[in-house]
Amino acid sequence: MKTKIAVAKGDGIGPEIMDAVLRIFEANEVPLEYEFVEMGKSYFDAGHSTGMTEAAKATIENLGILFKGPMETPKGKGVKSINVTARKVWNTYANQRDFRSLNGVQTVFSKAGVSINLTIIRENIEDTYGGIEHMMTNDVAVGRRIITRPGSAQVIRYAFEMARRKGYKKLACGHKANIMKLTDGLFLETFYEIAKEYPDLQASDIIVDDLCMKLVSHPEMFQSIVLTNLQGDIVSDLCAGLVGGLGFAPSANIGDNISIFEAVHGTAPDIAGRNIANPTALLLSGISMLRYLGLTANAATIENALLYTLEKGVHTGDFGDRSVPSKNTSEFADCIIANL
Amino acid sequence: MKTKIAVAKGDGIGPEIMDAVLRIFEANEVPLEYEFVEMGKSYFDAGHSTGMTEAAKATIENLGILFKGPMETPKGKGVKSINVTARKVWNTYANQRDFRSLNGVQTVFSKAGVSINLTIIRENIEDTYGGIEHMMTNDVAVGRRIITRPGSAQVIRYAFEMARRKGYKKLACGHKANIMKLTDGLFLETFYEIAKEYPDLQASDIIVDDLCMKLVSHPEMFQSIVLTNLQGDIVSDLCAGLVGGLGFAPSANIGDNISIFEAVHGTAPDIAGRNIANPTALLLSGISMLRYLGLTANAATIENALLYTLEKGVHTGDFGDRSVPSKNTSEFADCIIANL
Ligand SMILES: CC(C)[C@H](C(=O)O)[C@@H](O)C(=O)O
Ligand SMILES: CC(C)[C@H](C(=O)O)[C@@H](O)C(=O)O
Repeated sequence: MKTKIAVAKGDGIGPEIMDAVLRIFEANEVPLEYEFVEMGKSYFDAGHSTGMTEAAKATIENLGILFKGPMETPKGKGVKSINVTARKVWNTYANQRDFRSLNGVQTVFSKAGVSINLTIIRENIEDTYGGIEHMMTNDVAVGRRIITRPGSAQVIRYAFEMARRKGYKKLACGHKANIMKLTDGLFLETFYEIAKEYPDLQASDIIVDDLCMKLVSHPEMFQSIVLTNLQGDIVSDLCAGLVGGLGFAPSANIGDNISIFEAVHGTAPDIAGRNIANPTALLLSGISMLRYLGLTANAATIENALLYTLEKGVHTGDFGDRSVPSKNTSEFADCIIANL
Repeated sequence: MKTKIAVAKGDGIGPEIMDAVLRIFEANEVPLEYEFVEMGKSYFDAGHSTGMTEAAKATIENLGILFKGPMETPKGKGVKSINVTARKVWNTYANQRDFRSLNGVQTVFSKAGVSINLTIIRENIEDTYGGIEHMMTNDVAVGRRIITRPGSAQVIRYAFEMARRKGYKKLACGHKANIMKLTDGLFLETFYEIAKEYPDLQASDIIVDDLCMKLVSHPEMFQSIVLTNLQGDIVSDLCAGLVGGLGFAPSANIGDNISIFEAVHGTAPDIAGRNIANPTALLLSGISMLRYLGLTANAATIENALLYTLEKGVHTGDFGDRSVPSKNTSEFADCIIANL
């Protein structure tokens, strides 16, 4: 029996990279069926305030899994980012991003011979992402930062479960509780409370500034790190930089009822429709989704084909050895398919 | 005529690294006189709630310049970090940290052949550092983040002046105004308002997560960056990691009446009193202070001696080529003095 999932191709380069990924899935006979949903910039333009149709929302809620390409949120006061809205509406409280060095993707770290392999779990809803702000006077802006015990507990528990499932030995909590004593203090307290249920995992905590210093000098110190929303946002992108940028980093938004697997890079309107975009991040997100759905054999086969293809120096125009001609999006997918 | 400054040796390794730095100053006949002030952990213990005596406070306010070693704040609810207090009490609204690759200090970046040279200016007082937080219920913690126009303006103006003085071509503003639309929005608006007065400098802005991704992959994109307090704290430490850690990063807290030059690394109680600590960060902070005081010839001579010494492979036990025997603190200072 095939599992059915919702797919939103996204804006800009979204459709072409999604097509490439689904073609790879098909070649590997991944037992999935797709229902394509209406979501993205044009739906805002058509008057849907959340950037999706009612039908799209119903389908996603019914199927429980959304695989999505990058999307653009139209600029303008009062318009909320479609990605942030999606996380909130469906309570996808944990954002998971797995970062690993890929052979064939050159970075400062690969040149220095430092290999990266770590997972960041970011709380995905609370913190300053509530958007509760006001101008007290014309000269004084006040924002509210809210951290709750249940909100912290659900993402921290997910992080411990994830760490155990991946066979990690340790999970660190990044925070700034030395300054934000009550808010980050609550997150930290909850972390150590839940850590008691996972005696097989080594739990520790680290101040976020120190964490960033260590991540750029000794990333091998960490296996997995859980953080509040904004600090997690910053640390996630820092880690993406370590492995070559957002083009090489998968992202999963996990909730109890709905989970979203997406490429977090932009829609690159300048190169959209030219069949030259790099589908790697979306493919990596798709591979995470297959694992999440229990399709571990498909995930492993596709992942190995991707790693092998990159290692052989196959690349799109945005990365890799410039002396080797680059592939376009479909050729890149063809190479991965040939290596399945 | 000699300028008189206040000096607080600090806790742990503070006294020995301060002695090393002052000995280097003396050897170069730096025209400064020192008044040593009582400030640090033992003054908390003796009942001074701010970690300094009234006499120390009066001296610092009278002289306007404080040169300080690392200090420890005793743990305990309600005790505020002595460093944070000092910034607030004396309104040292701009924290400046200059990061540059040092020959002889190996990092991931030096191994990859990437050279770092940038300045971070961090707003030093506002943001969540006000410590305004409360527990709304046992399960809900609320913190307040406050950004003001005058508070933003003074640090942003300092950043533009600094950039011009250093001969930089550009200044970027790091922020998260896409989420914190009013608070970071106010900071960003103020940035572009003040930028109009500096048409010789290229002003741009960048979302803080994207900034961190770029800093770990293409740090050469930036010359100087101004940020709000917490984001600046995180980005500063990230940049310290790029050049070898806090042991190699100077720090200046600039205000209109009082400025503090300090090493921001810890007090390293485990190695205190053993004459093996690395005085480089404090020396670099001292060199910034000399420049600030207009003693540019002394600053240049001492800086060159330090750079030359490091380049020759001279090092304390915490860094450098392990196959070359390390120097202790006084020997390290002697080598710099010999190279003056
Ligand atoms: C686009 C932006 C609102 C978003 C965030 O801050 O969460 C992005 O940085 C991300 O990480 O998905
Ligand atoms: C110790 C801590 C309160 C401090 C800060 O967050 O400002 C430190 O990280 C710094 O940068 O001086």
